[in-house]
Order: sequence, then structure tokens, then C-alpha cells
Amino acid sequence: MFPKNTWYVACTPDELEQQPLGRQICAEPMVFFRGPEGQVLAVEDFCPHRGAPLSLGKVVDGQLVCGYHGLVMGGDGKTQHMPGQRVRGFPANKRYQAVERHGFIWVWPGDPALADPALIPHLEWAESEQWAYGGGLFDIKCDYRLMIDNLMDLTHETYVHASSIGQKEIDEAPPVTTVNGDEVVTARYMDNIMAPPFWRMALRGNGLADDVPVDRWQICRFTPPSHVLIEVGVAHAGKGGYDAEPQHKASSIVVDFITPQTETSIWYFWGMARNFNPGDKALTASIREGQGQIFSEDLEMLEQQQQNLLRYPERNLLKLNIDAGGVQSRKILERIVAAERAAQPDLIARQA
Amino acid sequence: MFPKNTWYVACTPDELEQQPLGRQICAEPMVFFRGPEGQVLAVEDFCPHRGAPLSLGKVVDGQLVCGYHGLVMGGDGKTQHMPGQRVRGFPANKRYQAVERHGFIWVWPGDPALADPALIPHLEWAESEQWAYGGGLFDIKCDYRLMIDNLMDLTHETYVHASSIGQKEIDEAPPVTTVNGDEVVTARYMDNIMAPPFWRMALRGNGLADDVPVDRWQICRFTPPSHVLIEVGVAHAGKGGYDAEPQHKASSIVVDFITPQTETSIWYFWGMARNFNPGDKALTASIREGQGQIFSEDLEMLEQQQQNLLRYPERNLLKLNIDAGGVQSRKILERIVAAERAAQPDLIARQA
Amino acid sequence: MFPKNTWYVACTPDELEQQPLGRQICAEPMVFFRGPEGQVLAVEDFCPHRGAPLSLGKVVDGQLVCGYHGLVMGGDGKTQHMPGQRVRGFPANKRYQAVERHGFIWVWPGDPALADPALIPHLEWAESEQWAYGGGLFDIKCDYRLMIDNLMDLTHETYVHASSIGQKEIDEAPPVTTVNGDEVVTARYMDNIMAPPFWRMALRGNGLADDVPVDRWQICRFTPPSHVLIEVGVAHAGKGGYDAEPQHKASSIVVDFITPQTETSIWYFWGMARNFNPGDKALTASIREGQGQIFSEDLEMLEQQQQNLLRYPERNLLKLNIDAGGVQSRKILERIVAAERAAQPDLIARQA
Repeated sequence: MFPKNTWYVACTPDELEQQPLGRQICAEPMVFFRGPEGQVLAVEDFCPHRGAPLSLGKVVDGQLVCGYHGLVMGGDGKTQHMPGQRVRGFPANKRYQAVERHGFIWVWPGDPALADPALIPHLEWAESEQWAYGGGLFDIKCDYRLMIDNLMDLTHETYVHASSIGQKEIDEAPPVTTVNGDEVVTARYMDNIMAPPFWRMALRGNGLADDVPVDRWQICRFTPPSHVLIEVGVAHAGKGGYDAEPQHKASSIVVDFITPQTETSIWYFWGMARNFNPGDKALTASIREGQGQIFSEDLEMLEQQQQNLLRYPERNLLKLNIDAGGVQSRKILERIVAAERAAQPDLIARQA
Repeated sequence: MFPKNTWYVACTPDELEQQPLGRQICAEPMVFFRGPEGQVLAVEDFCPHRGAPLSLGKVVDGQLVCGYHGLVMGGDGKTQHMPGQRVRGFPANKRYQAVERHGFIWVWPGDPALADPALIPHLEWAESEQWAYGGGLFDIKCDYRLMIDNLMDLTHETYVHASSIGQKEIDEAPPVTTVNGDEVVTARYMDNIMAPPFWRMALRGNGLADDVPVDRWQICRFTPPSHVLIEVGVAHAGKGGYDAEPQHKASSIVVDFITPQTETSIWYFWGMARNFNPGDKALTASIREGQGQIFSEDLEMLEQQQQNLLRYPERNLLKLNIDAGGVQSRKILERIVAAERAAQPDLIARQA
Repeated sequence: MFPKNTWYVACTPDELEQQPLGRQICAEPMVFFRGPEGQVLAVEDFCPHRGAPLSLGKVVDGQLVCGYHGLVMGGDGKTQHMPGQRVRGFPANKRYQAVERHGFIWVWPGDPALADPALIPHLEWAESEQWAYGGGLFDIKCDYRLMIDNLMDLTHETYVHASSIGQKEIDEAPPVTTVNGDEVVTARYMDNIMAPPFWRMALRGNGLADDVPVDRWQICRFTPPSHVLIEVGVAHAGKGGYDAEPQHKASSIVVDFITPQTETSIWYFWGMARNFNPGDKALTASIREGQGQIFSEDLEMLEQQQQNLLRYPERNLLKLNIDAGGVQSRKILERIVAAERAAQPDLIARQA
């Protein structure tokens, strides 16, 4: 189950540079490509002629050319041309609304008529020169909600990421979860502790001493369908913590866009945005590499957790206070999906 | 669905040189081996003793010796001997009629009583010293009819094989499809064009200039169950095209024997027979290598097309004039399979 | 089908040295680890918090610490602790009785109340200094009964292991199978033959001439659920064969513990115990390597036999006199499983 009338991150612009991109999203095979004015377009990845994936073809003058027999399709899903054929009566492909914004390509898998670009979240860090961003993409075989759970409960850092960002003090600082409409916030503050290795690197990257006590914070924000942005940082202890002046802290936003591939697999767009030394590309690369290693430690756990849950479908999981962020996020998702199904019973019937 | 009372190419003689060959054909596991007089024999690949594949054993004095406990089976499917056992009451294995002819081993997966070797197509190019042949075998995960479609509509060359045999003029020359009984012929003629790279190589291989206009032809002939032989060639323009004298042209026959493995996989025997410079083994090797590269370009397209069709089973594909060859071939196959099922309801019940 | 109220070999002590071990046995995912006193413990490999496999965690002070969020579980399946949580109400995990004995870890997958360590077979060769043992573990995709069949009918050595322990004389010496309660014995004696390569190596390893005739024996003993111990050896001919004095023979026990993973896969613990030159570690290594190579020859045969049997589920296999050992062993297993199901209908319902 996942909302379909919503914006998901589909890919990044570099993935469309050379050729069309085939990608399954919300169980639908889509092909993404750039149209005549460079805009991003998306249609079903299925040639109406003989069923070949259009993503195996190429883009010519902003139209998709099927790599099998040359059918030419526009971004509206209509066949424009095919050598030696009258194409007027060809069935149209489903099209998907797609928008390039904030350094990502966003797609609306549901009803195109409802797709309002204004609903794409504003990402200040993606637009401002005060910020630098680096990130990557993982293909993980788990329900997208397991990844939301993972990100809304950072106590796992103590165990999964013991050598980089984990530390015992995370377990000892109880998180506080609040729900504001469709937003869930789980916040944790740890004062007067020593920074773990990743944050010592970040302190040094910001020209700060890394061997003195710090105040550390983690503020996880879930918004539907599956965006988790986490404000994280450390400030030299006693300088105001989260509210300290920039010269006393290293802080950033962990960026997580989770796009369902199927019910049990995801495209996981991860990254980090920081507002210190934004021009230092070597630092961006170094943080990106460190984060990539840390996040890859979650892969096996999530995939084996998924396998275990499929093996024991009837078992109820515990919902502890540390799980409140994930639990509240799931409630919001259930409400949204129920509303979507009530509004569009046809859509659901087709999915079932 | 595939006809069973018909001859398919099972393997080539070199595949039987060292040991028995296990190969699934029309969803039946078969083992091929050479009998006492060197003749080719085929039985079920299942030892009646404990179910081991007989193809894991060896051939001794023209009989199969199971590699597990030494049961000895003859080409009639009957157990001949087993150490320390009376074998008279052992159940017999199903046997298959198999014939070596024209450089291939042919098998009749259906009722052995109906297997008439006279029904194996005559292949002049395989017998005459005027011809040379080179070919190979691919294992492809697609319905055998997708490969027939592929071969009966060569407009795909323009897109899939753009750098070797494809050229825009193929798209521009409408093919003509005719049906003669169980044979389907799709022919295309392109006059006064420049030859694409593969044919320039062939012209040079025949001692002809490769930088002058040519007349090019493609005559695809389907015969059941799944043989597609394609006469292809180029002649210096104005010398008579297809009917030009040998010294003005380079021509050959593309050989395609498609044997269903399962409903969605095939053994694809491909090759090229040519009647110029038949003694030039280096040319044979060079053409074989070029053709192997060209045909391998179809693999991903066919396998992903198959995946897409499985994903959208309810979608109707278009049947355009360029698809007429495949469409007519499928009609013949449907007629044959229907007749077979009507004649042998038992056989079908066992398959279902 | 497999008995569950019985002892299986689960693993060897070295597999528990560094971390907990996750292993599926009788279709149940289990995690094995060492408790506070070094004893072996086993519980379900499923964290009651969020379903992560506990085997991805670590062992601290004899308790399992989940690698995701730090839940601490004891060997009784009860959660002992979790950072910041009250764990009293947490559901308990299923626990399994496990015992370390004779160099192996044994597990009782069924009702823990019935698990009596006295039922673990006594293995004299594992305890006595007169004996040396070397062995290994294979993961094989076949029904555990196919491996029992394999080991209770050594005529396969002639075909599968032709270059090491196989010889024509095995086929020629009819085996005799006897059933004593739950034990099945299949014995074969071959007098005055030349030893095959493996046994020539063993003769030399025992300081005996390897180029003179020998008397050879194979005495296969099956005991439930799936232990097959095979007394094998050769003595210089005329010295008494099986009963010859130690200075005239090389003999050993082939050790086979077969543990079902699923209905069609096994953990196969194989090894050889010998009572000559027990202190010669190089000889132990050399025999172990030879045996590993020999036993690996069975893998493809067994896995492909399994595939063939799944393909033809309705076919009846032959039961020859050479198969009597396997046939009788299967009868005992059927009787045990039937009794188990009659006694514990609930257990079975849960399995179905």
C-alpha cells in the first residue's frame, strides 16, 4: 500500500542525460525522458506496437523512439509517427506528470489531473548558495515503511552504525514525537557528550575543535508520502546547541526520499545538505562517501527484516515509545491511502 | 502453445561428441546420445531407478549408463541391464524420434508413430559444396513466437542493428507478405542504395567493390513449426538485383531454427549459408562472428519484451502491415496446434 | 516431512566462536549462541521488537543483543532488557533445546519438554584418543531422504566416485540389509580385490603396502532421524577382513549427519573418523580433503535428481534390492512422523 496521488522522487537529472530511463515506481513501469524544450516527461514503459520497453530506445528531438521498430511517442503518450504507418488510431500510453525541481525529478503516479506542482515540498537547501548537497541512490528490497521506521527511530545508530554516528548516549536520551497535521517530528537532544567519528570529521571540516564536549541534536521530520528530512548537528557544548551561532556548530540536513518500487522494494534517495563551507567540494565528496558507507550498513538489516516479516506474516510487532515516529507516520499513510481509495475506487480496482 | 508432432532442431552433432546431452524441448527433458551404429537416439532424461537425469551419465557401446547407479538404457527407452538386477519389469522411458540430417539433430517431441523423416525440410545449402555454413546457438528467455515476429519483420534492423545491417531505406520499402499453404513469405526490395557495413564486408569477401550503389533484397520464409530462412543479398545496382549473375552479387541465406524450451524460452539456432567463396574458412568465421554480434543485439530486446508482455497480459498488440509476416505465421501455428489437439486429446491432457 | 522431536546436528562449535549463528533447521529460523556459562542456547531468529533477525546482532555476556535497536534476549527466549524500555510484557520467543556433545551442537526442533540429552547417540570415536576426526559441511538443495538413500546404497560409488573409492567389485557384491528396531544396516563385503586410490592412500597412511590384494567392507548404519555412520575399511587379504588385527588394516567410520533445512534442502555434515595414526594431523587434513572432493561429486547428482523428482511428482521410483537400506530407513521415518503427528496434532497444524 502506498499513496499514488502524490509526488515521489523518481530520479536525478544526471540519470536522463544520455538516454531515456526505465524505472518501476509504485509497481508501474515508467520511462522518463526530456521533451523538446528539455522538460521532463514520463509515460508507460511499453510500446503500443509490440510491447517492447520504450526505455530501450532513444530520444530524438524530444520524442521517444522505440528501439525495436521505430515507433515515435510524445510525452502525451500518443504515437506521433511510425515509418510507413498511419498512427492515428494507435492506443495512447498512460502518461505521468513529472516535474524537475530542487535537483530531482518528481513524478505523480496517480491521476494526472490532480498533479499540482505546488504540492512538491520546498527545499530551501536545494536552492540557496548557502548550502551544499551530496547524495546517492540505493535499490533496497524492503517495504518503504520499514525505511521510514528506520529513519524515524535513530536509536538504531547505536547498533547499526556503532563506528561512525552511533553512541550510547542516543539510547539514553528519550526522543519526543509530535504530530502536526500530516507532519511527524521525532526530536532527540544530547547535551555535553563527546562527538562520534562522523561528527568529529564534520567539526574539523568546519574549522572547529573536535576534542571538546558538544551538544548534539537529531530532529526527524516525516511528511507524506515518504520524505524524511533530519536536522542533525553538534555545537560546542554550552553555546546554545541547536540554536548556537554558525561559528560554534556543524549541522546539516539528512535527506531521505523513499520511492516504492513494489510493495517490498524501494528506490532510496539519500543525501546530506550542509550550510557550512558550501563551496568546499572535497568536503562534499568526503561527507557523501562517509554517508554512503553508513547508509549501506542498513541494507542487510532492512532486507533481512523484510524477509523475516514475510516469513511470519501473522506476528504483531511491538510499538515502543522509540517507535512512535514510525507508528505515527504509518497512521498518516493509512489515512491518506484510505481517502484515496474512497475517492477513486476505479484506480484501486485496477491496482488489485 | 507449440506443435509437438513436428520436427525441431534439437542440437548440433558437436554437442554429442563427448557425452550425452540433456536438453529441455517443448517442456520435456530429453537426453540425446549416439547409439551402437552412431545413430542419434533420444529418451526422457529421467532414470527409472531413482529419477537421476540420465544426461549426467555416459554412453558406453551406444547405450546410456546412468551416472548414479549404473542402470543401462537403450535408445528404445528400455532398461537393458543393471548390475545385480533383473530389469525385465522396469518401466520404459518415453523415447523420441531423432534424425541427424543437414548438419543438425532433429527431434519429434510428439507421437513417435507419426514421425516421418521425409517431413524434415530439405536444405540444399547444407548438402551442396557450392555453399558454406556457419552458425551458433543462443538460449533466450522469450516465447518462440516473439522470435518468429522478429525475423519476419526486418524493419527492426534499422533500430536494433543500426550499425551493421540496418539502414533507413528498409523502413521506406514496404514489405509484401504472401501466404502459400503453410508457408509465409515477406519480401522487401531496396534498389540503388548504398550497402550497410555488414554487406560491404560481404561484397569485399566476394571480390566486389563496396563503394557503389547496390540493389538489396530480403525474402523471409516461415515454415512450421518455427523455421525462418531469409534470402538476403546485395547486387551492384542495375545488374538484375536478386536475379543478378553470381559475379555481380553477394547473397546468402540467414538460417533460423527456433526450438521452444518452455512457453517463454527458446533454443535459437542461427547461422548463415552463402554460395560465394564457400571454401574460404576465414570468411566463414568472420561472417559468423559478425552475425553472432548482430543477433546478440536482439537478446535484451526480446527478453524485456517478454517480461513486459507477462506484466500486461491483457493488452492487445498492434498488427500493422509490417507485422503481417508474424501475424500470418501465428495463424498457421494456431491452426496446426488446434488440429493436433483435436486429433490427440490425450496428449494435450497430459500437457495441461 | 521430517521428525521434529529428535536431535539433529545444528552446527559445529567453531561456527559460534565469533558471533551468533542464524540457521534454518526443519523450516524454522533459529539463532544459536553461547550463554553466560558458555552453554549453547537457541531461540527463534526473530526480534520481537521489529522482526529483525537476531543473528545479525552480537552476544554480550551470554545474551543476544539485537543489531538493530539493542533488544537483549536470553536463552529462554525472554527479553531481558532494552534501552529505555520496560520489557516485562514483551512476547517470548520460541526456544530450542540445544546441547554441545561429541564435537557438535545438537538441536531438538520440536517440543522442548521432550528433549532428553540421553537420546543423543553416543559417538565413541568422538571421545576416545584412539580416534581422529575431520569433516565439513555442505549446503545441498535436496530432500534429506535422497541423501539417506545415497548413503545406504554405496553402489553409486562405482559411478559417481569412479576415480577414488569406486570399483566394479562393489556392484558385484550384493549388499545385505537388516533392520534392528529403528536401526537399518546394509553391509557389503568384497574379498581379495585391489584397493581403489583412496584406500591405497589410507593403507600407506597406516604404513601398509598398497599394492597387494585386500578384503574390503562397507557397513552402513542408519539411525533416526538421519544419521548414517558407515564402517569402511580394507585389510590385507586373508588377515581376517573386518575382524583383522589393527596392524593389517586401514579402517574408519564415514560420518554423515543430515539436517533438513526445508523439505528440499539440507545441511550435510560429513566427516571421517579413523583409529589409525590418530595423532597425524597432516593425514587427517589429507583424508579430509580427499573426502571433501569425493562427497562434492554427489552434489550435482542429488540436486538434479531433486529437480527431476519435482518435475515428475507422480512417478514411482523403483525399489531394488540395492535400495533396501533407503527403503527401510524411509519406513522408519514414516512411522516416527506418523506417531509424532498423532501425539501432537497442534504442532502439525502449525506446520501445515
